[in-house]
Amino acid sequence: MPVIALVSKMSDVQREAVHAAYPGVEFLDFSQERDGLAARGRAAEIVYGNVRPAELPKLPNLKWIHAGWTGVENLLYPEMLERGVLITNTRGQVAPAMAEHVVAGLLYFARDFDAFRRAQAERRWRAGSQASLLEGSRALVLGVGAIGRVLIPKLAALGVRVRGVNTDGRAVDGCDEVRTLATVREALGDVDHLICLLPATKHTRKFIDEPFLHALKPGASVINVSRGGPLDEAALLKLLDAGHLKGALLDVTDPEPPPAESPLFAHPKVLLTGHESPHGSKGGPLGFETFLHNLGRYLAGDLDGMRSRVDPEMGY
Amino acid sequence: MPVIALVSKMSDVQREAVHAAYPGVEFLDFSQERDGLAARGRAAEIVYGNVRPAELPKLPNLKWIHAGWTGVENLLYPEMLERGVLITNTRGQVAPAMAEHVVAGLLYFARDFDAFRRAQAERRWRAGSQASLLEGSRALVLGVGAIGRVLIPKLAALGVRVRGVNTDGRAVDGCDEVRTLATVREALGDVDHLICLLPATKHTRKFIDEPFLHALKPGASVINVSRGGPLDEAALLKLLDAGHLKGALLDVTDPEPPPAESPLFAHPKVLLTGHESPHGSKGGPLGFETFLHNLGRYLAGDLDGMRSRVDPEMGY
Repeated sequence: MPVIALVSKMSDVQREAVHAAYPGVEFLDFSQERDGLAARGRAAEIVYGNVRPAELPKLPNLKWIHAGWTGVENLLYPEMLERGVLITNTRGQVAPAMAEHVVAGLLYFARDFDAFRRAQAERRWRAGSQASLLEGSRALVLGVGAIGRVLIPKLAALGVRVRGVNTDGRAVDGCDEVRTLATVREALGDVDHLICLLPATKHTRKFIDEPFLHALKPGASVINVSRGGPLDEAALLKLLDAGHLKGALLDVTDPEPPPAESPLFAHPKVLLTGHESPHGSKGGPLGFETFLHNLGRYLAGDLDGMRSRVDPEMGY
Repeated sequence: MPVIALVSKMSDVQREAVHAAYPGVEFLDFSQERDGLAARGRAAEIVYGNVRPAELPKLPNLKWIHAGWTGVENLLYPEMLERGVLITNTRGQVAPAMAEHVVAGLLYFARDFDAFRRAQAERRWRAGSQASLLEGSRALVLGVGAIGRVLIPKLAALGVRVRGVNTDGRAVDGCDEVRTLATVREALGDVDHLICLLPATKHTRKFIDEPFLHALKPGASVINVSRGGPLDEAALLKLLDAGHLKGALLDVTDPEPPPAESPLFAHPKVLLTGHESPHGSKGGPLGFETFLHNLGRYLAGDLDGMRSRVDPEMGY
């Protein structure tokens, strides 16, 4: 039976669940002192958690890394890609919470809750809020993957028309149109809500730039819950200040966290949510159910049956 | 053709729409100087707007009042009831905006946006938010009428299980259970979200009292968008302060607006939205479509075909 190196913390309850399902699996715990990888990493075939470039040579028998999070760009460095290590993540399990976070953001701007918070702070009853209906509005979802598949039916149920973007423009349930990154810039003028679910890859770096944001419908809102890299924050602030955009919810930034002096903190049209959009998923700690399933498939030699496998070429 | 007394303002475009559909209808405009009702009210058979008790004797030929709003308790005084004047309101047209406002409130508390606003004001990135999923949670909708019928499918689509309350417990699409005010107190312990859509009547006065709020599931949120009367605000504040309730969105209060010294303004768990939940409906000014339809039915003598008729006995 393989040895699992714990770099992320695994609770006693979780370890018992692993042993109950797969007796004989052994753990080496590096979650408190990952320097121990140097002396004992050779034994590990599986890593539960992160592996830094300098740590990889200490894991000559590593076959599989399970990441208890979604964006794995930090695992996809050249030495890792060269070794061909299998990587799985937890994009499926955080999807319900992240999808609700996105809908909450859309409604926060659509109902102009910022105006109410300002009025209340000044003990004014009437806020003169500028609300707009979600029903009949248009969302653009950049990156229709595991989170998009949970999000899009919710948007559709609220009467929002959804245009999706994926790698090849293939149809997606609930989207009335699907485009690619190469063709989406031609279809921005009717977009009330821009939702960024793009991974951080070399293809997405600052993809959402000033011309892109300027082409959105006046009064549009922007929600970014995936990675800061794809969004040009300076352009965003410029178009918020110009009044072209209504507001932005940023769960992620670049760099992250923003430096203390960042204008994002004090901007009246920016809502920062501290990379906590995955909070509140049911079923205990994120990703553990996926890990248990994947361990079973791995032990059975059924690598194709493992969930949330990362495609190193695609970067997610 | 009847004469319509305009107490609420009707725009030129709207008047033209009336004349185009029903040539010969006459208007008397009191929207700028309602004192004129004394001299010229006798001619009016229809009032578009409000009629105060002291004004009713000046309208001896009044047959129908159309209220461009939803809560008509101020029209249901004894002299009006005795005269048997037909009253219609606009509950249907504001429903989409109010339903979205309610969903926005649920998600605001579920995603703990208050925590993010506090963190951001202190330039902290991580907020330590306490989110909970809407999916799988339980809402109680008190008063399933025109707004509830728009709201409930939206909640159901977000995975919220809905218990409704109406006058006779009859089944409602999208509710897995329907009770009456008399039996709802037995079914509060699993309620994560209390949504008050109750009209202000003698039966609903402070119906949501301290025992009621205390019986809700710990951590529940409260949304009131109908009328302040049914909710005991002192009890609400007590249970918010005790930590039993997570938060409250109050679009309505009692009295309304709250006095400047009201503790509601400064309470960190209360979001006041200034009776602006109907803002943002599509289709122009609220209620006008309903008025046009009803005028046609009225002229045809088809009173049963008029929409949003108020039942004076029920009070809504």
